[in-house]
Amino acid sequence: MNIIKNSIHHVRSRIPMTKSLYVITGVFLSLLISSCGEKENSNQAATVEQQSYEWKLVTSWPKNFPGLGLAPEKFAEYVNQMSNGRLTVKVFGAGEIVPGLEVFDAVSQGTVQMGHSGAYYWKGKIPASPIFAAMPFGMTGSEFNAWITYGGGQELWEEMYKPFGILPMLGGSSGAQFAGWFNKEINSIEDLKGLKMRLPGIGGEILERAGGVPVTIVGGEIFSSLQSGALDASEWVGPYNDLSFGFHQVAKYYYSTIWHEPGTTLEFLINEKAFNALPEDLQHIVTLATKAANQSTFDEYNARNHNALTTLINEHNVEVKALPQDVIDELRTITAEVINEQIAADENFAKVWKSYSEFLTSIGKYHQLTLLEYYKNRG
Amino acid sequence: MNIIKNSIHHVRSRIPMTKSLYVITGVFLSLLISSCGEKENSNQAATVEQQSYEWKLVTSWPKNFPGLGLAPEKFAEYVNQMSNGRLTVKVFGAGEIVPGLEVFDAVSQGTVQMGHSGAYYWKGKIPASPIFAAMPFGMTGSEFNAWITYGGGQELWEEMYKPFGILPMLGGSSGAQFAGWFNKEINSIEDLKGLKMRLPGIGGEILERAGGVPVTIVGGEIFSSLQSGALDASEWVGPYNDLSFGFHQVAKYYYSTIWHEPGTTLEFLINEKAFNALPEDLQHIVTLATKAANQSTFDEYNARNHNALTTLINEHNVEVKALPQDVIDELRTITAEVINEQIAADENFAKVWKSYSEFLTSIGKYHQLTLLEYYKNRG
Repeated sequence: MNIIKNSIHHVRSRIPMTKSLYVITGVFLSLLISSCGEKENSNQAATVEQQSYEWKLVTSWPKNFPGLGLAPEKFAEYVNQMSNGRLTVKVFGAGEIVPGLEVFDAVSQGTVQMGHSGAYYWKGKIPASPIFAAMPFGMTGSEFNAWITYGGGQELWEEMYKPFGILPMLGGSSGAQFAGWFNKEINSIEDLKGLKMRLPGIGGEILERAGGVPVTIVGGEIFSSLQSGALDASEWVGPYNDLSFGFHQVAKYYYSTIWHEPGTTLEFLINEKAFNALPEDLQHIVTLATKAANQSTFDEYNARNHNALTTLINEHNVEVKALPQDVIDELRTITAEVINEQIAADENFAKVWKSYSEFLTSIGKYHQLTLLEYYKNRG
Repeated sequence: MNIIKNSIHHVRSRIPMTKSLYVITGVFLSLLISSCGEKENSNQAATVEQQSYEWKLVTSWPKNFPGLGLAPEKFAEYVNQMSNGRLTVKVFGAGEIVPGLEVFDAVSQGTVQMGHSGAYYWKGKIPASPIFAAMPFGMTGSEFNAWITYGGGQELWEEMYKPFGILPMLGGSSGAQFAGWFNKEINSIEDLKGLKMRLPGIGGEILERAGGVPVTIVGGEIFSSLQSGALDASEWVGPYNDLSFGFHQVAKYYYSTIWHEPGTTLEFLINEKAFNALPEDLQHIVTLATKAANQSTFDEYNARNHNALTTLINEHNVEVKALPQDVIDELRTITAEVINEQIAADENFAKVWKSYSEFLTSIGKYHQLTLLEYYKNRG
């Protein structure tokens, strides 16, 4: 036995092994000792550590949908690679396990360990949640990443989701979203009156106050609704996603003005109990894989959007237009009204908005001074 | 023995173990069998897998320097956490093992496994290298990330560094750098004549052609040179780093115009042999930890720069100014000349520039149409 024990000791001292290796060491040492008629306690407390984990991740998107749907696929790949298969994550499209808008509940209840979605879908449960996805005239993707990571945003986000047993993490930005596809030209505020436009969430509320008729339908119905005239206009995402839906075939104008979702950022939802049950190294792998998937998705949109717009203009003769200044000013004024009402209505909204808006005001001025001027001067 | 073998089999079938665990299994199985007087071959081929690794990472910055110097510290922390200590990375400041500008050679020669630096320092060896750090009137940090990751940049970068046995990876952007600190007001091109300014690299070359006198000194000498009048002006990084150096105490004006380094991005340098010697899961951990450190560093600058500028203005009464339009136009014209000469002089520069400039032209137009307008409209 001494030879063996020394050998074990030698291996241990030369190699700072992982906890998992120690466990295996423990198990085998125990078996070995038993088989040779000696007795020693194995480290039972550590047996959890050697487990492998199979997680399910449900999404609000069709499986492998460009951009949005690739973020969780990247995440799953990163986790699998870094954990050497100790944690595998299987990604399910909307409707495969639960419908797209039941992702939050499924993660909260522990039906699945993870989800990938957009925070504004949970407005009914958490009035402050849209702040963690996109706000009209709010932060861009880069600004939002900075607020979440170094501006206090992550702490507030966790506080809001904590009562539901969910740990939220950044899930990739789709970049600044275009105002959308229009079959009616918008030359003044008057043209918004009666405009039937697919525009969900707070954007739709603002349009309604400006005299329009917001409609909420899923992405798959936009094309036929524009074609039939049931809709006068619709937003979707931006050139990369819009090109693949073929909206240029059924709409005259593409309005490139950014206002309702200037930096839509998706989210990973993690069941807190499942996360806490992981050994520490796998917790870090999950956390950093979300960070890497967040960056990859933003990079992907940044790289694809401008090429897709070039294709729309050069190959499909799309006419790109900007909303007139009085329309923009009106939408911004109404946005402030709507936000003020939400501040008055919900304490948590007010709390999160305070942090968000202070950061936005400061970084907004900074980017007017620096990047705005730079985009002009670069020529 | 049968009980033991069955137990082993049971553990194996229930848990898809890492290669490392198999090795430990093998070692113990072997020891066990020997001790009990039976014979079976251990899996010797796999013994490499159980190694742990201790890497050294040298940088071009003072240890723990805000922003720049924290990127490699974050990287080291991420790797340590995710690998559960199987790979530890020790970070050394400039001069601790090699001087700051010998990082490339140290990694290339295998003196250390990794480095953290800026690609423009290697212009003497690789004329195209500055394209991978910052180019006057070039890409911003977000645009550069997109080009590297989804626009063909990474492949070209690897091609350029391959002859030196180095694998390059994104190492964090410091955001758009300010024109800098001036004790002479710049009202026209004439004011550049004879201007003694700390401005290294290609920016300095452009200043020289515009009639200025570029000076290259290290960061630690800028303060005293501005104070003594040896320098009329100096760039450094941006508000976050500039505030900590106290330049507002020795310079009258802070020019916020972005031109010479619109999105300076740092780099991780990895010795290829050391990387290839890692098991696959650790290779993925290294790669994704650089990705996460890249994003964290950019987020940190985005979050800190605007607050630092507010402090400079409100607490230190700094006067922020913009370069006049004719100066900007002149600098942009000279930039194009310098780049054209470099295209003519070096085939690899021409090759990398083709990819970079095509991406820049396309994404530049896109951001003029979208973000420029948005920064104006946000109010």
